[in-house]
Order: sequence, then C-alpha cells, then structure tokens
Amino acid sequence: MIETKGNIKKIAVIGGGTGSYTVLKGLKNYPVHLSAIVSMADDGGSTGKLRDEYGVLPPGDIRRCLVALSDSSDLMKKLFEYRFSHGSLEGHSFGNLFLTALKEITREDGLSIKEAGKILKIRGKVLPVTLGNIKLCAELEDGQLIIGETKIDIPRHNSKLKIKKIFLYPEVDSTKEVLDVISDADLIIIGPGDLYTSIIPNFLVRGVSEAVANSKARKVYICNLMTKNGETNNFKVTDFVTELEKYLGKEVIDTVIYNQGNYDEELLNSYELEKAYPVGMDKENFSKFDMNFISGDLTSAPVLIRHDSEKLAKFLLDGKLL
Amino acid sequence: MIETKGNIKKIAVIGGGTGSYTVLKGLKNYPVHLSAIVSMADDGGSTGKLRDEYGVLPPGDIRRCLVALSDSSDLMKKLFEYRFSHGSLEGHSFGNLFLTALKEITREDGLSIKEAGKILKIRGKVLPVTLGNIKLCAELEDGQLIIGETKIDIPRHNSKLKIKKIFLYPEVDSTKEVLDVISDADLIIIGPGDLYTSIIPNFLVRGVSEAVANSKARKVYICNLMTKNGETNNFKVTDFVTELEKYLGKEVIDTVIYNQGNYDEELLNSYELEKAYPVGMDKENFSKFDMNFISGDLTSAPVLIRHDSEKLAKFLLDGKLL
Repeated sequence: MIETKGNIKKIAVIGGGTGSYTVLKGLKNYPVHLSAIVSMADDGGSTGKLRDEYGVLPPGDIRRCLVALSDSSDLMKKLFEYRFSHGSLEGHSFGNLFLTALKEITREDGLSIKEAGKILKIRGKVLPVTLGNIKLCAELEDGQLIIGETKIDIPRHNSKLKIKKIFLYPEVDSTKEVLDVISDADLIIIGPGDLYTSIIPNFLVRGVSEAVANSKARKVYICNLMTKNGETNNFKVTDFVTELEKYLGKEVIDTVIYNQGNYDEELLNSYELEKAYPVGMDKENFSKFDMNFISGDLTSAPVLIRHDSEKLAKFLLDGKLL
Repeated sequence: MIETKGNIKKIAVIGGGTGSYTVLKGLKNYPVHLSAIVSMADDGGSTGKLRDEYGVLPPGDIRRCLVALSDSSDLMKKLFEYRFSHGSLEGHSFGNLFLTALKEITREDGLSIKEAGKILKIRGKVLPVTLGNIKLCAELEDGQLIIGETKIDIPRHNSKLKIKKIFLYPEVDSTKEVLDVISDADLIIIGPGDLYTSIIPNFLVRGVSEAVANSKARKVYICNLMTKNGETNNFKVTDFVTELEKYLGKEVIDTVIYNQGNYDEELLNSYELEKAYPVGMDKENFSKFDMNFISGDLTSAPVLIRHDSEKLAKFLLDGKLL
C-alpha cells in the first residue's frame, strides 16, 4: 500500500465511461493525486443532443468522472446523475444540463468543467483530452466508413465486421494541461472501457500517445472483462493489447491487469443476449509481449459483470505498481 | 438600526416574484431571521411547463427567493438564474430544472426546496405558502372568469376590465411551518409585488390571513411603485390597501410604505408602452385608514423603476418598525 512520506504519487487515469468512473471512485479514497483524462468522442443520447444544440464538449463522461471524484453530499451526486425519465427533458441527465448551463455562462468548456469540479468538491482533476469538437470514425474490414461514436458503439451495420482502423475527424490537439499531467504522472492507468469508443479515442488526439510513451510513469492497462459486440468480438486479452499498441506504440504498456475467476452461468446467459462474452485469457500468448500480465479477482458483487471499485483500487495500490 | 442583544428578530416576507427577491436580498445582510413565504400560483413559461410535465410546485419564485438568500458563489447564483436562450431547453431557467430534478429524486416538494436551500447555502428559509397544486382564478367586473395566473398577469382579455375577485381552485391548506413562521414573527413584510398575482394569492390559502391577523408581529405593506395593466390600472396607494384588506381583513396592516420622489421622464415613457404608470400618492385618503403611511426614497438606480434592495432594507430596519 502506498504510504509515501511527503511525496504523494500522481496518477493519471485515461479513458471514459463506466470504466473510468469505477477506477476513480476506488482510488479517490487513497492519498494520491488523481487526474482523469476523458475521451471527447461520445455523441449519443443526452450528450449528443447537447453537443448538437449547444456546441458543448460531450458532457456525459466528464460528468461521471466528476461524480466519481466528488466529496459532495450523496444527494448532490444523485442529482448530478439523475436522468429525467419522461416529459420534454426525457433522457437528459441533470449533470449534463448542469455542465451545459455552466458552459453557456463561462463560454469555455475547460473553465466550466473546472467550476463544476469546485461546486462538486472533487478530489483531483477532470480533464477533457481535447477541447476540439470531433467525430469518431471507424473503417471496417470491408472498407465501410462509420461516422460517429454511437454508430460504432451500437452498430447498425453487420456487427461481425471487424474494425480495421479508427480515427478522429478533424484531427485535433490535446491541451498543455493534459500533456503535463501525463508526463508528470507516476502511474498511468488506461482503461477499462470500450476499446475503440472510450479508450483509443484518447490516443488519437495529437500529442497524447507521445506523451504517454515519453512519460516516466508506470503504464498499466486494465483489460475489459467482457467482449463487446461490433467492437471486440472474440477478443482475448492480448488482442486488446495488440490493438491498443497500434495507436499507443509498441511496448509502451508495462503491465496488463486481467481478471481471473469464473462468472455465474446465469449471469453469462444474460450477457449473451448482448453478444458479450468473457474475454479469453490466452496465457499462451503473454510471453510474446515484453510486459507483465497480472491477474486478480477484481469483479463486483454478482449482479453485473463489472470491475469492483474497491478491489481494483486496492489491487492497483498494493505496492506492485507504485 | 436593529442591534438587539441575544434576541434576533424574526422577519417573515410574504409575496413572490421580483418584489420578494428585492426585499430578501437587502435584508439578508442584517442579523435577522428571515423566512420567505412564496405564492404558488405562477403557471407561466418555464415554471408552467415544469408544473404540467413534472407535477412540481411552481419553481420560479422559489428559485428567486433561494438566490436572494444564497451565500453561494456568484457563479452558482448566476447558474441558478441562467435561462437557456435557444435549443430544446429554450426558456427554461436552470434553477427551475434544478428544483425539478431534486423533486423527482426526493419525491417531496417541501424537502426538495429545503435541500436546494442547503446546496445554495441560504441564510433563512424559503417556504411555499402551500404544498397544494392550485390554479389562480379571477372574476372580472363583467362576470368573465379567467383561469390561470399567467392569463391574469398578461391579459388577453380587455385589460380595462377590473378584477372583482380572485380565488384559488381548488381550495388548499397552508403548512404548519408557514403558519408557525407567521405567528412567531416580529415583523411581517407584505409585498412589493403584483397585487393579484403575487401578493394576494398567499392570503387565499386557508389559514394564512388568520395567522397574519393573529400574529403579534408588526405588519408592513410595501406598496408597488407602478400600476400594472390588467391588474391595478389607475390604482393609488390606498386602492392597493383597500383591495388587500378584502382578503387579509380590515386594519390588519399597521404600516404602509410608499415611495416618494419623481421618476425620470424618459423612463416613464418606456413604462407607458406597458401601460404602467406611477402609483398615485393619494395622501388625502390616508387618514381614512387606521395605519401609518410612511414614505422614503426607495428606488434603485434610474434604469428601471424598481425598489432598491439596500435602501429598502435600511429603511425597514432603521428602528421605526422593529
């Protein structure tokens, strides 16, 4: 466990979505400096509507990271995550409206996120990986071009087609703050999260991959528990790593964390409906990579197949990595 | 000036809208216990839409009183008052959405307003005069019935027709908390505000008029500066008092505060467009009422004909009333 005197460790968590939320929520309870670097590719639902109408950076993932790091009252956090279930506000998360109104007042996304952080009393920083307005695009193995994160995330095309390449349109720069956080970090945590729609979009932003490669930090990838239809069908642990390396560079990652243990049969059946299956543990391939593969029992109570915040934080900070 | 030792004075401000906001904002800076009792008749704009769709108590006036009493950052107050000017959220005030989401979570209007008060760090209390869902109705002198606060406030009927009577549909009770605040008050401030649509609706709620009449408090009415088309055309100071007495009871009011002084000609011209004129100072009629009529220069900088928060608070607390 990290109990460094004076020298508090700096951790950068790169991702977006539920994965970052889970990691941050657990780590928040430890004496570390946390920075969340968040993908700006999301364009679905409430987030997509607010992007279109108000030109705001996609608030959804920012909101979740803010809540994960918040020291506010439970009610305030609940309010931020509250989603209107009917009426003309249906589908909007209140936190998204909050960030949108703040942006309208401050006229600057970076500033509005900082101010929201103050209001929510967050422990750490939440940083959009870019302030640019981008669309995520995917080229499939048959040459088809899919434009928009949601269309990749929830495929309307033949979901068996593999993603050949993803890219951002237009190309955008990161921010000095993000690049500084990456280069000053002691530990960089990548994932878990949807590979092509939450994780890699961060490394498509100019400057980010290089900053990660050049950082002195320990670089850890937390592999997903389940495959995702249309993105990572049939993927095994090293398939995630191989794809990630295409964008991040070869052998930038030091350590891969994967989950060990079996899931409840009935639970797996429910995931089968979404064509999601446990990520294969292809230990036979681990030796082909110059990195450590470590495993643990990292899942939460058996209702959903999710990483457990507390287990994950304990595992990350138990002395192996920092 | 009140500088009582130990015994902090309790002030209840009864009204709604801009008037209550102005009074509260000024009084907030003095060492007094403030309670705002707010009319629940509003049914227009963002407030009306949220009432219809989410069954929430009208949030608009509550929101303004919360902001008036808030010790939060200026940004938080600005955020609460921010109104979306375009897109699908157009016309909604963010604070109204805030109160609506809180109500959806807490399932109780009274509770959500209290929680919003905590989040906004208010000095004092903001209390809806009733938790009942009501419509304000007006009977005009020609027998026409107008249903809904907004239709009275912004008349589509012949605005020269006088209001004969207003009432609530259905009849509703007040709350124990409101009645206790009234009966424990040292000073009750009524108004300023639209007579039929912001002030009197409070006294139409069962229990309120009796509580005011029976309270040991000094009872002060702050008369409006300008008449309002469709409500108080050609009204002089004592016309306001006479109408108020119909609902509040004879000679319940101890003191009437009216404004002295002249307004800028050009400014008056702009008000003429809304058919609003300075309230006549009919001093010749004052002696017909068993109450004090006192006047002062109470208006704000000459951009709008509005009461000035600071002048008003100083005037109210200069020793004449408490």
